[in-house]
Amino acid sequence: MTSNVAVIAGAGSGLSASLARLLAREGFHVVLAARNIEKLDALQAQTGAQAVATDVSDPASVEHLFDIADKAGPLSLVIFNAGGRARGPIAELDPEAVRQALLIGAYGGFLVAQQAARRLIAQGAGSILFTGATASVKGFAGSAGFAMPKFGLRGLAQSMARELAPKNIHVAHFIIDGAIASAASGQEPGPQDRRLSPDAIAEAYLAIHRQHRSAWTWEMELRPWVENF
Amino acid sequence: MTSNVAVIAGAGSGLSASLARLLAREGFHVVLAARNIEKLDALQAQTGAQAVATDVSDPASVEHLFDIADKAGPLSLVIFNAGGRARGPIAELDPEAVRQALLIGAYGGFLVAQQAARRLIAQGAGSILFTGATASVKGFAGSAGFAMPKFGLRGLAQSMARELAPKNIHVAHFIIDGAIASAASGQEPGPQDRRLSPDAIAEAYLAIHRQHRSAWTWEMELRPWVENF
Amino acid sequence: MTSNVAVIAGAGSGLSASLARLLAREGFHVVLAARNIEKLDALQAQTGAQAVATDVSDPASVEHLFDIADKAGPLSLVIFNAGGRARGPIAELDPEAVRQALLIGAYGGFLVAQQAARRLIAQGAGSILFTGATASVKGFAGSAGFAMPKFGLRGLAQSMARELAPKNIHVAHFIIDGAIASAASGQEPGPQDRRLSPDAIAEAYLAIHRQHRSAWTWEMELRPWVENF
Amino acid sequence: MTSNVAVIAGAGSGLSASLARLLAREGFHVVLAARNIEKLDALQAQTGAQAVATDVSDPASVEHLFDIADKAGPLSLVIFNAGGRARGPIAELDPEAVRQALLIGAYGGFLVAQQAARRLIAQGAGSILFTGATASVKGFAGSAGFAMPKFGLRGLAQSMARELAPKNIHVAHFIIDGAIASAASGQEPGPQDRRLSPDAIAEAYLAIHRQHRSAWTWEMELRPWVENF
Repeated sequence: MTSNVAVIAGAGSGLSASLARLLAREGFHVVLAARNIEKLDALQAQTGAQAVATDVSDPASVEHLFDIADKAGPLSLVIFNAGGRARGPIAELDPEAVRQALLIGAYGGFLVAQQAARRLIAQGAGSILFTGATASVKGFAGSAGFAMPKFGLRGLAQSMARELAPKNIHVAHFIIDGAIASAASGQEPGPQDRRLSPDAIAEAYLAIHRQHRSAWTWEMELRPWVENF
Repeated sequence: MTSNVAVIAGAGSGLSASLARLLAREGFHVVLAARNIEKLDALQAQTGAQAVATDVSDPASVEHLFDIADKAGPLSLVIFNAGGRARGPIAELDPEAVRQALLIGAYGGFLVAQQAARRLIAQGAGSILFTGATASVKGFAGSAGFAMPKFGLRGLAQSMARELAPKNIHVAHFIIDGAIASAASGQEPGPQDRRLSPDAIAEAYLAIHRQHRSAWTWEMELRPWVENF
Repeated sequence: MTSNVAVIAGAGSGLSASLARLLAREGFHVVLAARNIEKLDALQAQTGAQAVATDVSDPASVEHLFDIADKAGPLSLVIFNAGGRARGPIAELDPEAVRQALLIGAYGGFLVAQQAARRLIAQGAGSILFTGATASVKGFAGSAGFAMPKFGLRGLAQSMARELAPKNIHVAHFIIDGAIASAASGQEPGPQDRRLSPDAIAEAYLAIHRQHRSAWTWEMELRPWVENF
Repeated sequence: MTSNVAVIAGAGSGLSASLARLLAREGFHVVLAARNIEKLDALQAQTGAQAVATDVSDPASVEHLFDIADKAGPLSLVIFNAGGRARGPIAELDPEAVRQALLIGAYGGFLVAQQAARRLIAQGAGSILFTGATASVKGFAGSAGFAMPKFGLRGLAQSMARELAPKNIHVAHFIIDGAIASAASGQEPGPQDRRLSPDAIAEAYLAIHRQHRSAWTWEMELRPWVENF
């Protein structure tokens, strides 16, 4: 049993992989939650992480995820990384796609965070981190189907931050304002660092988790030096 | 056939009644959409408004609402007034109540606004107004189940405002920061004007609808003079 | 003696002229404060407004302005319309120009608002309105010398709004997000309404002054329908 | 000659001392700028820092400060920590105190940042960090004389961040939302960590200076876990 269990929900992207590698190196027992865990084989082999097939929009599935994580030891850190989006002009969006985006990106965040909160409140410590995007704070033309879940997730994170800080639980929301370098590009930000390095983002998440509680941050935006904002 | 059809979705509250009365006086044909329209009998008699039983979270029901409104003439103004909320500490919220709050308060807003947008884009004019709350911009402790849908609705409104303004469609979001005087209190704000007068709010909505397009407002907050903010 | 004295500080622009005309039509006694009042001759003749040569960054000059306004009757409405700006890249800005921009655009706002506040507090009613710009809420590249005074003025307005609302004094801040149609262009917003109509802005200011105190707005942005934001 | 010169303007507070100690330990040559440098004797002895008597609101004095810093080597990091404030209700504020608060807290920030920018642009790298407060983003009743300079400083920082990021210069603004543990209290945040640890803040500043440029933060708020926000 380790006292450093970390759950990463919405694993699979470049960021989740960087987080898993960093947290494993730092001694965390990492639990990866994704809809399809087959794609996580290499990452598991590399990091010793555990993978649990999870539908973040299903209460029973999320509860199951945390029941499994409980067996590894006390929970320390939960990262909600899943996202949903429906793309297109408002008049052409498919209602069912918008509904799914809300259920995965906002309701899914709630389900994961609620399970995390119950455990961390009982322990009296721990962190819950949410991954947001530019669309979390700015609704762009043509992005109604992305801004809705992302704004909603931020509302959840802000409310939880205010509610749980006095219980010694650190809730933080990250605004990733730019494209993350992907596995396809070898996780590299490119010669000009024009895409966000997922390793750099992961370092920022860990630093927030480790902040002294007299100086906590609830929101942090990260963007490439060349990004307009 | 009138060219001034106004749809108010989420009718029944003090604000919707004030809006219906004001818009009827100003010559609009008012269509009230509510889950239970029995309670709207008196308001219909008073204003000549039409009432349509509507579940704003159901695409078919919302489409039906607008099909009926179409028969009254070209659409001019759509107001989304419905809200959903789940109350309580994050650890104790009922997931199903949170899901319903999102589906009514955010997804419902999308369904209504999409139907409105399709008609107004075709006409090249009109307004879509959303009713928000303090929780639209600030997530308080214990209000995760209200902040999520309200933040989400604001993301929708902001994205639509940016997308539709150049098409001559005015999208605006109101932040009602305080308690609205209710029907129970005779719609009066009280001797000290400590609660928002729903008539004053309705006047503000109409003024935004009538703004000169060279000087549009996308967001307006309204609060009693005695309200802390 | 009239009970409706309005002071417009920073008169001369298209907006101040529209405000003067509207307020005069609505029965206000208008006092125009500008550094050079010669240019105000036509406006005075047209509106019956009084003009007082004023340096808004000089305490004695501002006190003199209000002493003169006092003679016309009780103060009702004060609008701070003056602005200062220094343009250019940060490395090339002239420090003295930046200092003047701060002293006129921010400190001048304080001096005017303080004189207004003293009178309105004594009366227990009235409004103080500030004219802001896009740069009040967003610091752009190359606009440090404009963002500094405009952000500062907004801080003043927000602080005063919170302090004076419970005293029945309405403080509001306008964000004019776009180019105002100027006297040079006949005050017209153009065939496409691409520039803000100063008359439309003036109407918005008056509507805020007249808001029911149960539903006050502290900040309102106005922009042309075609403006990116 | 070292390539790691750091200038801290507004030295003397608990935060500046913590910054000086941390930066000295990390190999920076530290230049402390304060109006009265006598009080810095102990800190200089402890850290090897250089102290330069500086009036941040005087262009010549600020230029002199940077001329001296130039002799120590290429500039790497500049921190503006000085503040000005005038306290009291709007009607009672002393205009001269408000003017000084603006000239020190906002104009002083500009003078320091301009000298820094000229050097860092020439080098093509470096960081400029600004210390803000709760009053940088929220104007409270009775704090007009503090909100004005702090909002203004934030406008400067945001504008510079947008202008200088593409030149590989990292500009960031910190919102210190709470009381910093002072020298008087032994720099300790207290048994309950209710005051911000200045050492924890200093660590956050250094981490921002060292961020990978593919993932830069322009604004970071820090507050004790028990602080309301």
